[in-house]
Amino acid sequence: MGQTRRPTAVPAGLSAVLALLRDGVPRSRAELVAQTGHARSTIAQRIDLLLESGLLAHRGAATSTGGRPPEIFAFAPTSRIILAADIGAAHLQVAVTDLGGTVLAQRGEIAAIADGPEAILARVSALGFELLEEVGRPRRDLVGVGVGVPGPVEHETGRPRNPPIMPGWDGADIPGVLAESFRTPVLVDNDVNLMAAGEHWSLYPGVDDLVFVKVATGIGAGIITEGRVHRGAQGAAGDLGHIAVPGGEAVTCTCGNTGCLEALASRSAVRAAWLAAGRSNEEAEDVSTLIATGDALALDLSRRAGRDIGSVLAGTVSLLNPSVVVIGGSMAMDNPILLEAISDVILTRSLALATRDLRIVRTGTGAQAAVLGASRMVADHVLSDGAIESLLV
Amino acid sequence: MGQTRRPTAVPAGLSAVLALLRDGVPRSRAELVAQTGHARSTIAQRIDLLLESGLLAHRGAATSTGGRPPEIFAFAPTSRIILAADIGAAHLQVAVTDLGGTVLAQRGEIAAIADGPEAILARVSALGFELLEEVGRPRRDLVGVGVGVPGPVEHETGRPRNPPIMPGWDGADIPGVLAESFRTPVLVDNDVNLMAAGEHWSLYPGVDDLVFVKVATGIGAGIITEGRVHRGAQGAAGDLGHIAVPGGEAVTCTCGNTGCLEALASRSAVRAAWLAAGRSNEEAEDVSTLIATGDALALDLSRRAGRDIGSVLAGTVSLLNPSVVVIGGSMAMDNPILLEAISDVILTRSLALATRDLRIVRTGTGAQAAVLGASRMVADHVLSDGAIESLLV
Repeated sequence: MGQTRRPTAVPAGLSAVLALLRDGVPRSRAELVAQTGHARSTIAQRIDLLLESGLLAHRGAATSTGGRPPEIFAFAPTSRIILAADIGAAHLQVAVTDLGGTVLAQRGEIAAIADGPEAILARVSALGFELLEEVGRPRRDLVGVGVGVPGPVEHETGRPRNPPIMPGWDGADIPGVLAESFRTPVLVDNDVNLMAAGEHWSLYPGVDDLVFVKVATGIGAGIITEGRVHRGAQGAAGDLGHIAVPGGEAVTCTCGNTGCLEALASRSAVRAAWLAAGRSNEEAEDVSTLIATGDALALDLSRRAGRDIGSVLAGTVSLLNPSVVVIGGSMAMDNPILLEAISDVILTRSLALATRDLRIVRTGTGAQAAVLGASRMVADHVLSDGAIESLLV
Repeated sequence: MGQTRRPTAVPAGLSAVLALLRDGVPRSRAELVAQTGHARSTIAQRIDLLLESGLLAHRGAATSTGGRPPEIFAFAPTSRIILAADIGAAHLQVAVTDLGGTVLAQRGEIAAIADGPEAILARVSALGFELLEEVGRPRRDLVGVGVGVPGPVEHETGRPRNPPIMPGWDGADIPGVLAESFRTPVLVDNDVNLMAAGEHWSLYPGVDDLVFVKVATGIGAGIITEGRVHRGAQGAAGDLGHIAVPGGEAVTCTCGNTGCLEALASRSAVRAAWLAAGRSNEEAEDVSTLIATGDALALDLSRRAGRDIGSVLAGTVSLLNPSVVVIGGSMAMDNPILLEAISDVILTRSLALATRDLRIVRTGTGAQAAVLGASRMVADHVLSDGAIESLLV
């Protein structure tokens, strides 16, 4: 058996060097030695490998108080590209980004997830190929595909598991189908996890603990702890939608339980209340205008939804003590009343210590949150130990 | 300025070597090189430093298929000792452990936390000195003191912050007072965080996501994510006690809000209901016997408390998707009905995916959970980068 060990295993320390440099700050060899704890010879060799692969670039020389200034090196995020797809209940958004989350091209379209995996994934592939063509990069630059879907995903397999609003998708082999098209690793996650990752990466990179809440057809949360997405044991963490709202017991949810947040405050629930009050479907489409004009029912329904969401989020804040709560999703985008009502309840109900420095804000990445997060998921994966060898030339 | 850099900074990699070996598995130099990613020369030097300090020990030689068998090295948890104290609302427990969490000596006594920091910390010191005497180890072997208290603690300073059931302790300088006695670093945390850490370390070391719930005078949770205590932005995470229970709106809590879990299901709340039903204080002290004999009121109150706790924990499980929920604290120790009711509600209310492989169990470390966790907190600290230099000889 002594003959079969791999002749050249991936050198340890490659991902450590990249993990440091991904913050965008160029560093000298000496700085990388000090900050990774690896030996000088190890670092020198790793830098050479990364330069050769294009993942690092020379950035001239550092200033020096004497002697020959040391060379400095920087991460080269533009050296590779990622395909990121956000499959929503009623829309599809596909983007090509670089390794640093800069969107190089993107395309969105209306698409009903209920059309099933075959039809939808065919559209993802078609849009993906169009975008790759558009950015004009060689196919070998594509290092991976990241996909978000609006339901629970088994983390190890990338397959949806009993997703309530994705008929026909239970167990669908999204990674297999897209790997067939693009011949690269395909990673899949719940869209809310990706929104949290995207918002965090883009706007709150220094924050350890953040909760991103999506308020749309469904309601869910993506949780960042210690700077990373918390997925939980089965990848099901963040399921806010079926937490019981105090006082909501009279309402029965599609899941069979009573008082679920989704049954009270999701877009569907608010729309049902709207129609029950004798108002039209057309008006419901443009609640933001009605709120701006002071429509009493629009204000009232927004406040009630905000209070119910705030009531569940107060528990989330007490439990996790995050620094930032981000409210996103289609219902939150243009509804200041909703955000206000959510904030009021959180600040009233949570422990004072937990809300002392808490920021409750609207999403800043908006409709791009999920594709940015999908891109991040792929970048994290391909630049980590065990995967990075595939990027070496 | 070139002359002022530290001549011998702490060598990087020391904590990496220890972090591996703390699992108890002895390793050869080659294995440590492969698993830390550090160079062979670096590892050799780190091993020498750690052997010299007593933190590592030779463990003979590995078996080999030929040639001279490589030396192997193991972590030596008995080389240093830790003082761990659990300050409860009505009790005090102090223990001396080694770096691996083995309790070498311990002592407990009744003590009312309302006596204030001066009196209580004097008792901690007195018991601590007695125990150090008892174990007969030189004072230089003591590397730190860990303390748990039943209230929120500001993580950076180790001072309680507005602790509701610790009158006189707001801002108390616990680290300063005890460092005066023991001349070592003193770390303080909320007791429930420490219970979670202690239970996890002792019984579930391989589990990433665990929630430990203390049901006693107060109700709180310690959250383990990715194997570590999740403290949150202000160290206030895990505050289950003031989350609103659906259906509990009629009850006003001491905090001013309505329907808080603590106002419905804590030991004090259950005792109040017991007395209100015309039963005696003496009987309330021994609910476990009454449950065993089938006393209807004891069963009913336990079931109701369990349902309320389960109702809040169902939200916790939906949010965090842990692998294990541990129920501890004095009320849970000997009350099978409580655990049963908690489980029933969690399994009914949480997402099926999140409960598929969920274990809901009673604490296995019992009254020792907090001192074990306090010991772990200190061991983690003193064996980490930046602190470990103080252990080198």
